[in-house]
Amino acid sequence: MTTTILYVCVTCRGTPPVDAPANLRPGARLLAEVERRLAADGDKSIDVVPANCLSNCPRACSAAVSGSGKWTYVIGDLDPDRHAGDIIDFARQHRAHEQGVPEWRDRPEHVRKHTIARVPPVKPAAPSQEQS
Amino acid sequence: MTTTILYVCVTCRGTPPVDAPANLRPGARLLAEVERRLAADGDKSIDVVPANCLSNCPRACSAAVSGSGKWTYVIGDLDPDRHAGDIIDFARQHRAHEQGVPEWRDRPEHVRKHTIARVPPVKPAAPSQEQS
Repeated sequence: MTTTILYVCVTCRGTPPVDAPANLRPGARLLAEVERRLAADGDKSIDVVPANCLSNCPRACSAAVSGSGKWTYVIGDLDPDRHAGDIIDFARQHRAHEQGVPEWRDRPEHVRKHTIARVPPVKPAAPSQEQS
Repeated sequence: MTTTILYVCVTCRGTPPVDAPANLRPGARLLAEVERRLAADGDKSIDVVPANCLSNCPRACSAAVSGSGKWTYVIGDLDPDRHAGDIIDFARQHRAHEQGVPEWRDRPEHVRKHTIARVPPVKPAAPSQEQS
């Protein structure tokens, strides 16, 4: 099974934007809560990666779930006090699905209603014809 | 240089949504115009791929630019009669930049103002330890 990456935007100021030191921004708090929950579960199956701006500022906080050969999903309108569990659940569903496209009805309600975009997988480059 | 992929959502009905046969939907018209322009330029450097829904319906039409080891960008609010050139220009800039992050000031105005989201590259999986 390929690695599933959960990117969490740590520069997100939330909606409406709050003025807070970098480590107390809503995005940074969302990252901390995701990491705390996964550690509490002993779950090392999701690779949590902080990101500097996912360009979804009008609908912050933001996270994205991706993996080699799989669809990428961007989720928005995330509240660090309410939605950390939802994006963890979605990342686990994404990991379990071969193409990274969990059944719609199974996805957390927040994910169903606040998916910002999705992008097909980048196909691996074709082997060079020069190789034997 | 790695392949640059320009995904164009062919199911987009535009904003506000129009009722049209599949091949005349705004998304399908955007794809046709992108392909027509690249063919006219003799440009085969961009791999144009039709996509079925990029989940950006409220801000359709939609396209995404991606490439192995590069950032992915989703662009919205695209009008097939006005913005085919903008996403081609952005795809060429993305192709020319090692990380797929063209200089902000160089990007087409529509791309600067209507970027829906961006996602970091998926790192290639580490080589299996089982391989010799």
